[in-house]
Amino acid sequence: MSFRANHLLGIEPLERDEITTIIDLADSYAASNRRGNTRRDALVGMTQINMFFENSTRTQSSFELAGKRLGADVMNMSMQTSSVKKGETLIDTALTLNAMRPDLLVVRHPHSGAVDLLAQKVNCAVLNAGDGKHEHPTQALLDALTIRRAKGRITGLTIAICGDVTHSRVARSNILLLGKMGNRVRLVGPPTLIPAAFAQFGVEVYDDMRAGLQGADVVMMLRLQKERMDGGFIPSEREYYHRYGLDAAKLSVAAPDAIVMHPGPMNRGVEIDGLIADDIHRSAIQTQVEMGVAVRMAAMDLLARNLRARRGNAAVNGELI
Amino acid sequence: MSFRANHLLGIEPLERDEITTIIDLADSYAASNRRGNTRRDALVGMTQINMFFENSTRTQSSFELAGKRLGADVMNMSMQTSSVKKGETLIDTALTLNAMRPDLLVVRHPHSGAVDLLAQKVNCAVLNAGDGKHEHPTQALLDALTIRRAKGRITGLTIAICGDVTHSRVARSNILLLGKMGNRVRLVGPPTLIPAAFAQFGVEVYDDMRAGLQGADVVMMLRLQKERMDGGFIPSEREYYHRYGLDAAKLSVAAPDAIVMHPGPMNRGVEIDGLIADDIHRSAIQTQVEMGVAVRMAAMDLLARNLRARRGNAAVNGELI
Amino acid sequence: MSFRANHLLGIEPLERDEITTIIDLADSYAASNRRGNTRRDALVGMTQINMFFENSTRTQSSFELAGKRLGADVMNMSMQTSSVKKGETLIDTALTLNAMRPDLLVVRHPHSGAVDLLAQKVNCAVLNAGDGKHEHPTQALLDALTIRRAKGRITGLTIAICGDVTHSRVARSNILLLGKMGNRVRLVGPPTLIPAAFAQFGVEVYDDMRAGLQGADVVMMLRLQKERMDGGFIPSEREYYHRYGLDAAKLSVAAPDAIVMHPGPMNRGVEIDGLIADDIHRSAIQTQVEMGVAVRMAAMDLLARNLRARRGNAAVNGELI
Repeated sequence: MSFRANHLLGIEPLERDEITTIIDLADSYAASNRRGNTRRDALVGMTQINMFFENSTRTQSSFELAGKRLGADVMNMSMQTSSVKKGETLIDTALTLNAMRPDLLVVRHPHSGAVDLLAQKVNCAVLNAGDGKHEHPTQALLDALTIRRAKGRITGLTIAICGDVTHSRVARSNILLLGKMGNRVRLVGPPTLIPAAFAQFGVEVYDDMRAGLQGADVVMMLRLQKERMDGGFIPSEREYYHRYGLDAAKLSVAAPDAIVMHPGPMNRGVEIDGLIADDIHRSAIQTQVEMGVAVRMAAMDLLARNLRARRGNAAVNGELI
Repeated sequence: MSFRANHLLGIEPLERDEITTIIDLADSYAASNRRGNTRRDALVGMTQINMFFENSTRTQSSFELAGKRLGADVMNMSMQTSSVKKGETLIDTALTLNAMRPDLLVVRHPHSGAVDLLAQKVNCAVLNAGDGKHEHPTQALLDALTIRRAKGRITGLTIAICGDVTHSRVARSNILLLGKMGNRVRLVGPPTLIPAAFAQFGVEVYDDMRAGLQGADVVMMLRLQKERMDGGFIPSEREYYHRYGLDAAKLSVAAPDAIVMHPGPMNRGVEIDGLIADDIHRSAIQTQVEMGVAVRMAAMDLLARNLRARRGNAAVNGELI
Repeated sequence: MSFRANHLLGIEPLERDEITTIIDLADSYAASNRRGNTRRDALVGMTQINMFFENSTRTQSSFELAGKRLGADVMNMSMQTSSVKKGETLIDTALTLNAMRPDLLVVRHPHSGAVDLLAQKVNCAVLNAGDGKHEHPTQALLDALTIRRAKGRITGLTIAICGDVTHSRVARSNILLLGKMGNRVRLVGPPTLIPAAFAQFGVEVYDDMRAGLQGADVVMMLRLQKERMDGGFIPSEREYYHRYGLDAAKLSVAAPDAIVMHPGPMNRGVEIDGLIADDIHRSAIQTQVEMGVAVRMAAMDLLARNLRARRGNAAVNGELI
């Protein structure tokens, strides 16, 4: 076991062996989830609080199920109706929660960096469930496990990440993870939706979909996040689909056994042809959701172990954390 | 034990002995609920997801309590704020949920047939908690158990269902169940609120309340669902109460020991006089709520047994469901 | 053990020894919460329903965590979207819930007296989580425990309650508790925000902040509840802070070891200088939150014991409650 962190804030601070530790454990949780009906007890007696400052039924449900399957007491706080609206600051909210002595805090926030800031103020383990355009580490980990299950490895592959990269923390975390693990990453999309700064990550950039997909082992589509587009070029959905929507013709230039991924929720007929999404031989989209629960179980289990160890050490020194 | 179904989608597909199996088991759960403080373990290790596309605090709470009392991990998904609003289709939502591997899915949806459609796409057991004007099977089952507790039988009775039948899945499911069990069903209300098509169910139709209630063993009032009335005749509340509201005078023509029922929430002074609703000798309204939890415990317990059996058989054949 | 009540509706009906019993037990729960990771079983098999007719993420979360840590099945009902909106009365809602046979009912309601009314209609134990301008007993109890932890006693102290007393059930419950326990209570604020009727409680009233804080052992700030101010004098925030906001200068006239409290959520720079709120030597604000969970655990534990005893007695007599 080589996962040493107190929090899971992003892919950036993780070492290769830490990534492997998480997805190995997640893989075994996925197998036991499939066998069904097995309540495990890694988090019994622990309190998990889900604090979503942005709505996300899908991600919140995945964390909630993961915690409950491991025996945690899970509490959802709907931050849209909370005292944050009465003018309380994020830090006050964090201190208040911390005083309730949770063990695991799962946070989604619209501002990049907000989850890191919050993690500095609390004693428990914090998991970033998406912060602004910054990171969404469990998404990248579940994507990695999905790829490894399909391809047998998560290294030496050519992976095309397509679409609205600018607004996507999913893209950013995936680029970081796939790069660390030794894959070739291509970004494919209109130049207005691919930030120049991403060149630092050693990726290749394509504005032509067919060129970008040529020979790819994995085609990872992104959601067109219209709700985040403030000004700038907004293509019509029809035009976007014509140039960047994944259909059979465009997919035909990828590797013959290429898999198709999408973090959901999908805009069918905008980013992706519904027939491709539903093609059980090509689409790994349902597997992504399934691996999501498993990855969150693994991440929370590992963080809980580290938390217990820190608490044990602190108690020896007469401290309280 | 003769309940063989994979899902509980409606009363229509159920046989008489299946109905009896559910309400017999519910009866014993009701008894142990009364003794209090007894957590049972029929659903330990199982995940129940409540997906309500229409708000219903009352029904959702009943299912949630039922699941928790049997040891299930219960997750409520608030579909009003979910990715459905981001343009995801019902089918994508179903597939996503299915990939999280729940065991029981409780669904309410404003469109008739939506729950059946969803059940075809998932591997788990689905319970219909109300779909459009179609069915609300657990309501009919809890009504049947309430009647049987009061009358000692659920056959050979005269039951008047009164009010807004047109918009009522409660009425529809009750008509089907009471017919199957061999009761005489009368529909009582203004002709604009009783669909002609219901004649096929072998019911008697009355537009005069006193004629309809004459000698009835059970008077089942319906909620006036103004929110569903799109066009058509809408009576004033005062006029409606005068002609169809249940008061002591109208009730006096029913059988001397007739019971009064209402699925809730009540509009006091519209469908029913508050004094009748609160009359502990006549009103079975609180018993209905109590039996609601018991019936949902029974239905989920039986479906979980069938699910385990199917999974066991599948495993023998090397399949995964 | 000398807590004899069936409900916790307010501080007013409590005897001194009952208050001491609750905070003694809460103190021991606070200690075990600090040691972490200890799920206790005082409420296993019991159903706790949280019914908040006013939003309060903070208080609801505290009750939810308290219940889950004691093993209860906890259900939150969001009353904003419930059948109450469909015209159901509070009494019908109470009767409906009661029929679901919960053991503990935690209620917040905007109208003074609503929780007492509701308690008369149900068989389970009811906890008032705040009703109108009336009472908020668990807040006063957690404040008492916080004070006792800091000062070693909860008697013979001088306590200044400052700010918007008129709209504050927190103030009212605290005045009652602190008076019963033999403390000297001062109310400090603009005359428009201190009701004349409070003179009956034997408090001293100050409109000058420095005079009111002179030598105080505890400075308890209240939230300025603009949302409750209907007409009357509303000071500007700037003016209010200048005269009644707690800053270092004003605090300097209190006892040298005075502690500062606030029920949250804070308006920094309105009622209180952020530097004071964050001063770990003076501020007990985080301790209040921590004690909040402990006090709610203690109150629910004690009420559950009394409920079990009443049920046992009733069963002997062949009754059902």
